[in-house]
Amino acid sequence: MRIRVINPNTTASMTATIAHAARAVAGPGTVVEAVNPEHGPVSIESHYDEALAVPGLLAEIARGEQEGVSAYVVACFGDPGLEAARERARGPVVGIAEAGMHAASFLGRGFSVVTTLSRTTGRAWDLARSYGFGERCRGVHSCEIPVLALETDPQARAVITEHCRRALEEDGSDAVVLGCAGMADLCASITNALGSPVVDGVAAATVFAESLVRLGLSTGKRGEFAPPPPKPFTGVLAPWGLG
Amino acid sequence: MRIRVINPNTTASMTATIAHAARAVAGPGTVVEAVNPEHGPVSIESHYDEALAVPGLLAEIARGEQEGVSAYVVACFGDPGLEAARERARGPVVGIAEAGMHAASFLGRGFSVVTTLSRTTGRAWDLARSYGFGERCRGVHSCEIPVLALETDPQARAVITEHCRRALEEDGSDAVVLGCAGMADLCASITNALGSPVVDGVAAATVFAESLVRLGLSTGKRGEFAPPPPKPFTGVLAPWGLG
Amino acid sequence: MRIRVINPNTTASMTATIAHAARAVAGPGTVVEAVNPEHGPVSIESHYDEALAVPGLLAEIARGEQEGVSAYVVACFGDPGLEAARERARGPVVGIAEAGMHAASFLGRGFSVVTTLSRTTGRAWDLARSYGFGERCRGVHSCEIPVLALETDPQARAVITEHCRRALEEDGSDAVVLGCAGMADLCASITNALGSPVVDGVAAATVFAESLVRLGLSTGKRGEFAPPPPKPFTGVLAPWGLG
Amino acid sequence: MRIRVINPNTTASMTATIAHAARAVAGPGTVVEAVNPEHGPVSIESHYDEALAVPGLLAEIARGEQEGVSAYVVACFGDPGLEAARERARGPVVGIAEAGMHAASFLGRGFSVVTTLSRTTGRAWDLARSYGFGERCRGVHSCEIPVLALETDPQARAVITEHCRRALEEDGSDAVVLGCAGMADLCASITNALGSPVVDGVAAATVFAESLVRLGLSTGKRGEFAPPPPKPFTGVLAPWGLG
Amino acid sequence: MRIRVINPNTTASMTATIAHAARAVAGPGTVVEAVNPEHGPVSIESHYDEALAVPGLLAEIARGEQEGVSAYVVACFGDPGLEAARERARGPVVGIAEAGMHAASFLGRGFSVVTTLSRTTGRAWDLARSYGFGERCRGVHSCEIPVLALETDPQARAVITEHCRRALEEDGSDAVVLGCAGMADLCASITNALGSPVVDGVAAATVFAESLVRLGLSTGKRGEFAPPPPKPFTGVLAPWGLG
Amino acid sequence: MRIRVINPNTTASMTATIAHAARAVAGPGTVVEAVNPEHGPVSIESHYDEALAVPGLLAEIARGEQEGVSAYVVACFGDPGLEAARERARGPVVGIAEAGMHAASFLGRGFSVVTTLSRTTGRAWDLARSYGFGERCRGVHSCEIPVLALETDPQARAVITEHCRRALEEDGSDAVVLGCAGMADLCASITNALGSPVVDGVAAATVFAESLVRLGLSTGKRGEFAPPPPKPFTGVLAPWGLG
Repeated sequence: MRIRVINPNTTASMTATIAHAARAVAGPGTVVEAVNPEHGPVSIESHYDEALAVPGLLAEIARGEQEGVSAYVVACFGDPGLEAARERARGPVVGIAEAGMHAASFLGRGFSVVTTLSRTTGRAWDLARSYGFGERCRGVHSCEIPVLALETDPQARAVITEHCRRALEEDGSDAVVLGCAGMADLCASITNALGSPVVDGVAAATVFAESLVRLGLSTGKRGEFAPPPPKPFTGVLAPWGLG
Repeated sequence: MRIRVINPNTTASMTATIAHAARAVAGPGTVVEAVNPEHGPVSIESHYDEALAVPGLLAEIARGEQEGVSAYVVACFGDPGLEAARERARGPVVGIAEAGMHAASFLGRGFSVVTTLSRTTGRAWDLARSYGFGERCRGVHSCEIPVLALETDPQARAVITEHCRRALEEDGSDAVVLGCAGMADLCASITNALGSPVVDGVAAATVFAESLVRLGLSTGKRGEFAPPPPKPFTGVLAPWGLG
Repeated sequence: MRIRVINPNTTASMTATIAHAARAVAGPGTVVEAVNPEHGPVSIESHYDEALAVPGLLAEIARGEQEGVSAYVVACFGDPGLEAARERARGPVVGIAEAGMHAASFLGRGFSVVTTLSRTTGRAWDLARSYGFGERCRGVHSCEIPVLALETDPQARAVITEHCRRALEEDGSDAVVLGCAGMADLCASITNALGSPVVDGVAAATVFAESLVRLGLSTGKRGEFAPPPPKPFTGVLAPWGLG
Repeated sequence: MRIRVINPNTTASMTATIAHAARAVAGPGTVVEAVNPEHGPVSIESHYDEALAVPGLLAEIARGEQEGVSAYVVACFGDPGLEAARERARGPVVGIAEAGMHAASFLGRGFSVVTTLSRTTGRAWDLARSYGFGERCRGVHSCEIPVLALETDPQARAVITEHCRRALEEDGSDAVVLGCAGMADLCASITNALGSPVVDGVAAATVFAESLVRLGLSTGKRGEFAPPPPKPFTGVLAPWGLG
Repeated sequence: MRIRVINPNTTASMTATIAHAARAVAGPGTVVEAVNPEHGPVSIESHYDEALAVPGLLAEIARGEQEGVSAYVVACFGDPGLEAARERARGPVVGIAEAGMHAASFLGRGFSVVTTLSRTTGRAWDLARSYGFGERCRGVHSCEIPVLALETDPQARAVITEHCRRALEEDGSDAVVLGCAGMADLCASITNALGSPVVDGVAAATVFAESLVRLGLSTGKRGEFAPPPPKPFTGVLAPWGLG
Repeated sequence: MRIRVINPNTTASMTATIAHAARAVAGPGTVVEAVNPEHGPVSIESHYDEALAVPGLLAEIARGEQEGVSAYVVACFGDPGLEAARERARGPVVGIAEAGMHAASFLGRGFSVVTTLSRTTGRAWDLARSYGFGERCRGVHSCEIPVLALETDPQARAVITEHCRRALEEDGSDAVVLGCAGMADLCASITNALGSPVVDGVAAATVFAESLVRLGLSTGKRGEFAPPPPKPFTGVLAPWGLG
């Protein structure tokens, strides 16, 4: 089984962090391949960034389809391009916000999300409601740490841990979901500090993608998620190998 | 006042239809400019098409910002890229699904949507719920006419009219919303046939965009919709003039 | 095009304020006529006041129908009698709470309402949910300034501005909706003070009513909003010219 | 204990039917007084009728307050003026749609409403959602029998019984709520025919009003439902003794 | 009419308190019988306790059916076993959380619940949403007083009264619902202290059960709540007389 | 890793079917142990059966805790006792309705449930809403085949396959969830017949339980799901080894 974890931004060091988190939970015999697009934003912190990351993500899906990938993980907490990816791929595709929220739902009645910038909290709420977790999600909290600063800011770990602690308390939640793929390497440390379940969406999406393959399940193809109708694309889409 | 109506697909004949519908309702003194991207799909009939149309749409927004446009209309019923466009533009941005559903909400308790392909009905429901119209929207009906066939299929008008009639009856609705920008030129004819209000989103979005400018209102910029943080984009985004 | 703006209370000075706000945004060629009933409460601050204002409002609709009015605005934030007015009028009828909330929905993800007395906040929530904005409306805040004191209290402007500022902050909103027709003349000043969009429902309802007329749209008449069945009214309804 | 049942229309024969239904279920020692306003529509079949019935209803509440009434029933399925009545009365006020839906909620998971004219079904859904029964209410069915024809149409009983039977079957409901005060005298007969619980709102509201008095409970007066602020009413409100 | 009030825990002194509260509101001619199971937990403060209390509760229902009981009250605020009891009983069955929330809904727009331990607030919210009161219920507050300490802790009355006062204030509620059968004897005192309506679910359930009998209504038996299909039970269910 | 799959009814042949389905998807190194209680109903087809199955289920949890079980699956589609089990167990507990619906949510926008008896559809809807899938679940369909007849009725496979086919068509769903643990052995065959994803909750719960263990996640223990407070249980709970 080959799980391809796609970091939709173009920062290779973050892809490496993600790869490590995914491999740590994958089952024996499962190959985890972490990639990122060649073209696109170095981080995703706005709807604009997200929109411009999606063509690169879809190019990776297209490449994966040629290479026989079993399942995909979209490793950005906005779950960018998830529906388009599901149309394009034969195997299952799982987003990390989606997976993180599903995982947290098995752990109690309510969860809190702790994310990077406050401007992304609207998208997190939007996803929570769209996945059906409008009531289980009790709060979305931001640390005001930009995505790439997660790798360099020496205070990041302490600040995020403190926000998780407060989120649990204020929201009366049973679990916390980390709201950025770049937080994947902090999950164990925060769990230890809090003594409550902390969910890293990258790890959760990896095991859920693996689970769906093991169950023989993939996206239903009889309606909305059938392969996109073939058609001309005018202009230059070559950089992404799409069209 | 300059309203720029952006057809996010690359089919110029459809842009012309849209331009005509928008100009027919614009107030005196309002300049309506209809454009479409140079690069992208010829029509939008899937999440995949939508995702690949958005960079071209955003390039048009970027160009409009340089040219002093007052407000924008996104003229595709999936409202692609609406949130990203709102971040990028100073003036208001209105989607045609959004505008069509808002307009219909002023006309009674419930409305029905009549659209092209059944695979797009999921997106229409998604938008209806996200805009708050999950209960007012009583049905989304598809005619199984592809977007570009609206211009060429001699039966299109009759088939769509019949679907609108049945939608009103089955859903007990007070109004119908046409679910594709390519249906804009059919609105008057269907209205006459049915004797009930029929909403064309292109026209509705044009007058609502104009209204917001007249009210001095634009997207709130203190949070989620502030301009996207400037950052490097790796690889080739030049075709769209973005980055 | 004739837009009749009906202030449902009987205070003429407030009608004048409303008229001014409506005329300031109406398009060229649109005639705005502001009226108020002869009979009824001097202000509307309870369900009881609202109920007793409606017959006078409906009498104004009846008069408007005889005089060929194109569209109506109901200029009280409780949107009193809106559904009855829609049955009685041929043209579109727009409420100011309805219009204000719709307008704010185009400006971001969430809005706050700032209104007069706390006892009216229940009605504002009721309307927000009924229009589909139960999630977009993030807070309803009251200033504890009675309706008629808006005209005389020298602190009103400062107090309301401060409540708007706090509402934006506490609710994380993108826009504010002013929750009383009597605040119409404060909208520009508060907008300047805050730098975020502030919506006056009177102005919003005026341009939306005008928009609907321009679109050729009016209330659907095939069901719930057909003209009320003619029938005897016993006793004295003459004061309102109704029956 | 004195329960005043107010028929908000002006048809005395219907008031008599209502009185009979209410008295049949009242406990020993409870006095049921059924009244109707002097002024207003002879039946309520539209939002317009409802709006013009409310001043008469409120006049009856005002009279009741002077006479020491313990609790009120508003005996029209649109629950007209319920919130205004709650402001004005010291004791509890119960609407028959409200009571009927609450009663049905104790009897299973879902109920159906069977009412008179299809144009009133929107209001019934509106009330169901507002009371919290948007999911428990599985269908609102109309018989197309006008309110006053309930007293004279020899087919009414059979037609309504058949609609109730179909509603239970189609909706998979556990109970039926009769959607008009004028159906009160049919309840026993339909129950016998169907073998499933059938709820008459007049009877339900009477026992629930009595229950609230027995529990020492009445409308909370610390906020929205405090007595309406005293104020001038201009013009002629004398016919209703209001102002 | 015989109403059997079942305290699902095995503490007889609490059964006595409940009996007193129920008898105080029952109508003349209604016999109230309060019982508790022989087997089960001494108090219910967790899902685990609740699950182990239900067989004993159902044994009491079975006994009641043999003895001709007219209606049942389940006197624990988690409404344990309510649906199973409705299948098993011919007459109506009412839970005290259910009854308390229904009663409070007649008294204004929103209510607050004040309960014992914070670990039970999840269940209270769960019930509120399931009964349709997800919006009317504005807050669930816990006093951190264990159930059996209600009888012995000399501070209990003062602490609960203070929590009720704060709940009304913070939530802007019109009424309070007491969240434990063991608080039944405090209702009058708290009402006096607050001047706002305070609902004891035991009393409310008693009068509502009585009301349903008076209305001739009982659980619908055509679907989900038909008598459970007879079948073998393996092992020892004799202690409960079930199987 | 030891996953204990608990069939809450007492029919050993059904436990064997469940064991087979669970083992077929478990990863290498995971031990699946399938058990059923000694005491309780032979099948679960009502709220009553469910209530009487839960003590036996909890006894199995208690035994599992002594034996060092890593995670549990509750293998009945009503997810009986799930919350109580989560309080009692240290490791994660997953219900098969819960798991089946979560799995289906990754496969498209909407799913249908196909279950045994119509009387259980209310519970399925209840769970769907409680888990957040009130909109994703588009229909719950019953075959009217009793649980134990699944093993003996030669038509069962064909009848269920046909109901699944119709459910997909009528509901426009992307996937089907089988609504009974006893259908686990039919999943592959129905999948082949339909060409759309069909989810067996037993298999889904097994891989999700395994996933949670692999992620180091378990029920949050800081609030509602902390271990139940120790307390006396009066009477005979010995048959279940509980108290």
